[in-house]
Amino acid sequence: MSTIAYFGPRGTFTEQAARSLATDQELVPADTIAAALAAVRAGTADAACVPVENSVEGPVNATLDGLATGMPLVAVAEALLPVHFSILTRPDITEPAEIRTVASHPHALAQVRQWLADTLPDAQTVAAASTAAAAVAVQRGECDAAVTAPVAAEHYPLRILATGVADVLDARTRFLLVRPPGPLPEPTGADRTSVLASTANRPGALAELLTELAFRGINLTRLDARPARGNFGEYRFFLDFEGHLAEQRVGDAVAALYRRCSSVRFLGSHPRADRVADTIAPAAANDDYSNAAAWVAAVQAGETA
Amino acid sequence: MSTIAYFGPRGTFTEQAARSLATDQELVPADTIAAALAAVRAGTADAACVPVENSVEGPVNATLDGLATGMPLVAVAEALLPVHFSILTRPDITEPAEIRTVASHPHALAQVRQWLADTLPDAQTVAAASTAAAAVAVQRGECDAAVTAPVAAEHYPLRILATGVADVLDARTRFLLVRPPGPLPEPTGADRTSVLASTANRPGALAELLTELAFRGINLTRLDARPARGNFGEYRFFLDFEGHLAEQRVGDAVAALYRRCSSVRFLGSHPRADRVADTIAPAAANDDYSNAAAWVAAVQAGETA
Repeated sequence: MSTIAYFGPRGTFTEQAARSLATDQELVPADTIAAALAAVRAGTADAACVPVENSVEGPVNATLDGLATGMPLVAVAEALLPVHFSILTRPDITEPAEIRTVASHPHALAQVRQWLADTLPDAQTVAAASTAAAAVAVQRGECDAAVTAPVAAEHYPLRILATGVADVLDARTRFLLVRPPGPLPEPTGADRTSVLASTANRPGALAELLTELAFRGINLTRLDARPARGNFGEYRFFLDFEGHLAEQRVGDAVAALYRRCSSVRFLGSHPRADRVADTIAPAAANDDYSNAAAWVAAVQAGETA
Repeated sequence: MSTIAYFGPRGTFTEQAARSLATDQELVPADTIAAALAAVRAGTADAACVPVENSVEGPVNATLDGLATGMPLVAVAEALLPVHFSILTRPDITEPAEIRTVASHPHALAQVRQWLADTLPDAQTVAAASTAAAAVAVQRGECDAAVTAPVAAEHYPLRILATGVADVLDARTRFLLVRPPGPLPEPTGADRTSVLASTANRPGALAELLTELAFRGINLTRLDARPARGNFGEYRFFLDFEGHLAEQRVGDAVAALYRRCSSVRFLGSHPRADRVADTIAPAAANDDYSNAAAWVAAVQAGETA
């Protein structure tokens, strides 16, 4: 039976995402994002499910760093989850005023900062490795409350103090299912392609890369410029854009990035979880490209002019 | 006497940065980045000193969000500090093995993750509002150790367990000194200009903005694309680039951004802390612009052709 390693432990948002992406695979928790990716690279798992960006907090650095180096991995699917937290407490706590410490992953704490200030103003926040690790800490009596994914309530015998907690109600986290390179998912007309492009730091370098996409009518959906090797001014660019590598405009654009960059890593083409259809600019559809290529080939062959 | 509000409490890296940027101003700590900016907007401080980016962890969201909305504030100076931490403990702790809890700001904890795993593998990490708040927590006996700025050892009666601690030894944090709009600092030939530009989400929008800079030979030093209003795909762009708004190529480029964007906010032109001289492309110096403008004016006046 094939397996999906996910950023665990059990009871995290990533487990919820992995459940939604699994067909018949076994789900195996990994301690860290790096460990989930390493399991795929070592062949002990067939795929990994990891968070990649949050609409409020931004990119998940551990995932981007993990995909940027080591054996290449390619995203074949994504999931989008609303970030609504549950607040779980020990069963012996009956009053919010008894809650002295609230544990969670720092990203989760950041996303309920205002709710905590309003509801539990005297509680100290404690950084945990994950939302589920926070639930474990509460179970062990090390903390009084945990900010967790809703699914955590199924795994831990804790009292639910509140559900649907979020400072920004439309916050969402996007998760990727990544595998070693292999056959790409079929294009659906509502796809996302991701690449990591590294260029020398000189005026216009990024403008040229984005113009390669723009001139082909390809809509950028995310750009993350991260400092390379701890140096300001030297960046690598994580680009997400609409379309599928099997489509000619996207294949041509990615080939142009490859020509222009010191290195390019393909991070995947897969259907968008929100099913938003690709924008295709006039004269940039597959038929436009194939008609144009056929005409040039005919001219080259001396058949027309 | 004029005052600088800084993201405190006393003993943080931001205090170190504020000291380096102050001439004869009084330094007043503020509880949060938002409070430091609010003090300037309310007129109770003349300027604020806040962190803006870290070479490992990336942008400081609270600062970017704080500068993006509310009364405009403009950066007039910057400071660059190496991120080397000190580990402070209660004086009664004599063995590292006695350290059960280590507190600090989540960014600081992230930057010594490996050191903690190697040196204090059994210690639990605790999120604090700042590195100095962690020192206060140790002083109060709430935690055993704190990851702090070196300056914290001057303010708190704690034992120094280690200094110069950092997973990435060349990590640096950049800080801004911001004020209400007023006369800009003089150009120095080694300046940085920052703007916030918001555009509709359509193919090519960002490529056009960056091309306005690139065609004028202006080198981008940072680009941060942040989701607007919690929505994926709708972004505002924080752009940092070389040069000073008083220089014609920069003034022209910023005017072009203003024409093309739904909104542009000027965030400042000031000397770079690292004194790296501006790259000026051929035909893009101030003299090139003024010679060209003089020629066009002469042609318009019928004096030459």
